Amino acid sequence: MKHDRFKPAAGTLRTRVFQVIFESDTPLAKGFDIVLIGIILTSVLVVMLESVPALRDAYGPWFRRLEWGFTLLFTAELLVRLYCLERPWQYLRSFYGIIDVVAILPTWLALVLPGAQSLVVVRLLRTLRVFRVLRLMEFVGEGRLLIDALKRSGRQIFLFLFTVCMLITIFASLVYLIEPAEAGFTSIPASIYWAAVTLTTVGYGDIAPVTPLGQSISVMVMLIGYSIIAVPTGVFSAEVIRSIRADRYSEEACPGCGHDHHEKRARYCLRCGTWLDETTPDPRTLDEKTPRE
Amino acid sequence: MKHDRFKPAAGTLRTRVFQVIFESDTPLAKGFDIVLIGIILTSVLVVMLESVPALRDAYGPWFRRLEWGFTLLFTAELLVRLYCLERPWQYLRSFYGIIDVVAILPTWLALVLPGAQSLVVVRLLRTLRVFRVLRLMEFVGEGRLLIDALKRSGRQIFLFLFTVCMLITIFASLVYLIEPAEAGFTSIPASIYWAAVTLTTVGYGDIAPVTPLGQSISVMVMLIGYSIIAVPTGVFSAEVIRSIRADRYSEEACPGCGHDHHEKRARYCLRCGTWLDETTPDPRTLDEKTPRE
Amino acid sequence: MKHDRFKPAAGTLRTRVFQVIFESDTPLAKGFDIVLIGIILTSVLVVMLESVPALRDAYGPWFRRLEWGFTLLFTAELLVRLYCLERPWQYLRSFYGIIDVVAILPTWLALVLPGAQSLVVVRLLRTLRVFRVLRLMEFVGEGRLLIDALKRSGRQIFLFLFTVCMLITIFASLVYLIEPAEAGFTSIPASIYWAAVTLTTVGYGDIAPVTPLGQSISVMVMLIGYSIIAVPTGVFSAEVIRSIRADRYSEEACPGCGHDHHEKRARYCLRCGTWLDETTPDPRTLDEKTPRE
Amino acid sequence: MKHDRFKPAAGTLRTRVFQVIFESDTPLAKGFDIVLIGIILTSVLVVMLESVPALRDAYGPWFRRLEWGFTLLFTAELLVRLYCLERPWQYLRSFYGIIDVVAILPTWLALVLPGAQSLVVVRLLRTLRVFRVLRLMEFVGEGRLLIDALKRSGRQIFLFLFTVCMLITIFASLVYLIEPAEAGFTSIPASIYWAAVTLTTVGYGDIAPVTPLGQSISVMVMLIGYSIIAVPTGVFSAEVIRSIRADRYSEEACPGCGHDHHEKRARYCLRCGTWLDETTPDPRTLDEKTPRE
Repeated sequence: MKHDRFKPAAGTLRTRVFQVIFESDTPLAKGFDIVLIGIILTSVLVVMLESVPALRDAYGPWFRRLEWGFTLLFTAELLVRLYCLERPWQYLRSFYGIIDVVAILPTWLALVLPGAQSLVVVRLLRTLRVFRVLRLMEFVGEGRLLIDALKRSGRQIFLFLFTVCMLITIFASLVYLIEPAEAGFTSIPASIYWAAVTLTTVGYGDIAPVTPLGQSISVMVMLIGYSIIAVPTGVFSAEVIRSIRADRYSEEACPGCGHDHHEKRARYCLRCGTWLDETTPDPRTLDEKTPRE
Repeated sequence: MKHDRFKPAAGTLRTRVFQVIFESDTPLAKGFDIVLIGIILTSVLVVMLESVPALRDAYGPWFRRLEWGFTLLFTAELLVRLYCLERPWQYLRSFYGIIDVVAILPTWLALVLPGAQSLVVVRLLRTLRVFRVLRLMEFVGEGRLLIDALKRSGRQIFLFLFTVCMLITIFASLVYLIEPAEAGFTSIPASIYWAAVTLTTVGYGDIAPVTPLGQSISVMVMLIGYSIIAVPTGVFSAEVIRSIRADRYSEEACPGCGHDHHEKRARYCLRCGTWLDETTPDPRTLDEKTPRE
Repeated sequence: MKHDRFKPAAGTLRTRVFQVIFESDTPLAKGFDIVLIGIILTSVLVVMLESVPALRDAYGPWFRRLEWGFTLLFTAELLVRLYCLERPWQYLRSFYGIIDVVAILPTWLALVLPGAQSLVVVRLLRTLRVFRVLRLMEFVGEGRLLIDALKRSGRQIFLFLFTVCMLITIFASLVYLIEPAEAGFTSIPASIYWAAVTLTTVGYGDIAPVTPLGQSISVMVMLIGYSIIAVPTGVFSAEVIRSIRADRYSEEACPGCGHDHHEKRARYCLRCGTWLDETTPDPRTLDEKTPRE
Repeated sequence: MKHDRFKPAAGTLRTRVFQVIFESDTPLAKGFDIVLIGIILTSVLVVMLESVPALRDAYGPWFRRLEWGFTLLFTAELLVRLYCLERPWQYLRSFYGIIDVVAILPTWLALVLPGAQSLVVVRLLRTLRVFRVLRLMEFVGEGRLLIDALKRSGRQIFLFLFTVCMLITIFASLVYLIEPAEAGFTSIPASIYWAAVTLTTVGYGDIAPVTPLGQSISVMVMLIGYSIIAVPTGVFSAEVIRSIRADRYSEEACPGCGHDHHEKRARYCLRCGTWLDETTPDPRTLDEKTPRE
């Protein structure tokens, strides 16, 4: 469990609360998780709907009441969390602790912050409440295989993104030279925006080349973007396959010859025949001993 | 065959009709399948063409006559199906039974439903007839390998989609804060629509960022969308490869040593040499016995 | 060589011409190929440029002269081809023969066809000349590995496209019901065009949903399109990997035990140890014989 | 190291400067690299910002001063580079040497070139400075695995791009025949631009078909583009997987039987048991000898 370092000593009320809130082994803890997920999703939905002008005008007071309801709930939950933890301050500085605070902070700030009545700040604080959605990450689980594959392909995907950025810069500059400003290529940054839109095959069409030469170059950018998507996909596929395979192999060295690439279920070293499973005796030795006794 | 649980006892007329309609082993049954596929495709095409205003105005009566023709055909076919089945009610509640009913229901409802003359209901009932296309699923076959791979990668593709939704929500909120409402970012849901259009590289361009900061963030969203497509592709590729490989291996344990990862055509355990094929005798024992007799 | 069945008897002039035109082993034959590729590309380029109104107005007569030059060249080449072939009529009915004729037909037809002066026919004949580009397929070579992988994944990619078409039809009908005709969703075929544009992540934006419900469904279509691209990619990746691996294995059965999956360089059967290479003697037998003699 | 062929004799000042500039083993050399990367990125950013009209109007003199600062820095750096190299002229003709010159040339040219005051030339020279970004390629490192996989899949990806171009040409001509010029299909090149935009799933929407037949063909182009992306991805995935695997195997032939596909850590030939590691003695021979002495 990822919160084990905060776990209080066994047997107390705090331990039992801890188990309900931070673990998910018991029916009660599972129920708590499901209710919490439901409340988080509902509260994010309310934030979204409140941002629609028509709905805000019609149901403004209701949204505010609901919002205070969610904030009080999350605040109470955070207090209980801190109560049952061994090192509450350390939790508050952890990733999940910060998100717990971010989930309630905007509403409280709107109350106490001087000048929080200005439109910009109100809008900012309201929107920040959406980040509550990150609380759901706690329930996503580990996905070890995916994370393993991402970590190992990370360097090559960084190289790929770096190359993509360089291609975008170069082609953006070329098209900036060729296309007139009226077509939207007013500056290199604007052209970079166009090149990114084109190379990633998004293709808004708000800026598009109008000269034959510019269109030829943009066809080239499209074909490059269309083909090089194969690179991260290929790298990541290879890493996922490797992760699946690595799952089948142990890296523990054989005590006989040091070979360290055995299938996990192997019992004898494939290289020198040494018995690998140190917790049980080698049946070959048993066979030899049994008849003698 | 997927309808075997409904198969009546052999030798009767019902059995012969069952074989024509539900199986595809005999030439007659194959012919029936091909004619049925043709009729379904034609009837869906007619529904589509009827929805074109110009065509409906010109050939309205013809469309209605054709539609009644198809409905009577499908109704007759459904009655014959129910006649030759062991448990007709159970079939009606199965997936294919429901689709059979949905294929004819709208036309009959238009006749009997009070108020079915209102424009909205007429349009609804007419369009629902398109769902007839689902009847073709019966002929698609199993595609076991694909379904196996999908099932095994399902959890990770769900994780991926969940992450994509979270990214969409976060970036939509950011751009909603930055971009003016005039550019189309009128609410968080509208911004979510834009973020989905961008991250999936669809890129309609009906809503597009206009501020430099908004454009920078949208370039980031594009690059993320362009790269993370590698994730489901990699996961699914790995699973297809694993399915193909798994097809070659049996998981039956060797009676000698318990090893359970043999090629399906293996006859001796690759670990202890035990004879694996229990239906025929081990040739090594035969060799030993033959000379002795 | 793919044209070997048309090859005339050796030693004659026709054989030597055949070798230059249809084969590419000698320097002269390679030179001929390169010149031909150059002429084909140039003639296609001329057809393209002639279609630009401004260029046609300015250089019309030049384009016509060039076109007649290409047509006479290709006609002469075709006549020489037919002269040096064993079965010219059979060649004319083969894929490459048909393309050779299509490459020259439009220009000759424009001369003799009554009514070929009408604008539509002129435009048609002019544009058809572009199909000359297909002549280049003769030089592409085999790409056996790719074609092997395509053939084996063909059935699953057909299943995939069929599923995509069904998804497009269903979602198009749903959005046709929801969205107003003013937004472009005037009929089911128009909605199908929109759904295809969205699901394949092309996203022109000429038709885009305007109601919140329509936008929600279109976000769903986008996410589906974005994810299921993993299916053909995964299937094809797996088949390419299998093709590469199959290249390493022989399917010849072992004469000893019938096992038919050996690495191509294997010399002993991996199952029963029988000597596999029938053209040379087994070194083990040699070892036994040598000391005895 | 990629610049080793230019390395001067050891021990001199030039060697020490060489190590700082061209290598990255010492803390000083690493610091130099980081500072240089920072300066390159900053200077490219300045070029980009200078292209924004509003910023150029407001901070024009500052941009010019910064630009001269960068140019003098890069010029000094290039002179030091040439000073400490064995064969400076050969370096100037190498890839990295050319980029070093291109990085400073535009600014110096603007000073000395007659007519460099004309707007077009100024814009050209200013924009060319962006190519400085290519200097970062020196720091990208080798990415051997990716480059290996790219090289080996290069021929098949070329075949793929060739097929894509042929498809684009054919479909562009078809749609050019069908669609009216008013929809933007004014010539075959314009239609090729549209077909490329569609097949690569970019989808600007600046040109889009308006007739039902044209829309049907464009749906076909979309589905083809959506599916065949599987081809380069599959080929490249397979090659990356092969590269990773090849990394694990040695191709050195066994001195006993000639088998040439051993894991790199293998010590005995998997086929004939010969000791493979020629730098150390075979432990089996040692075992036999030890007891005798």
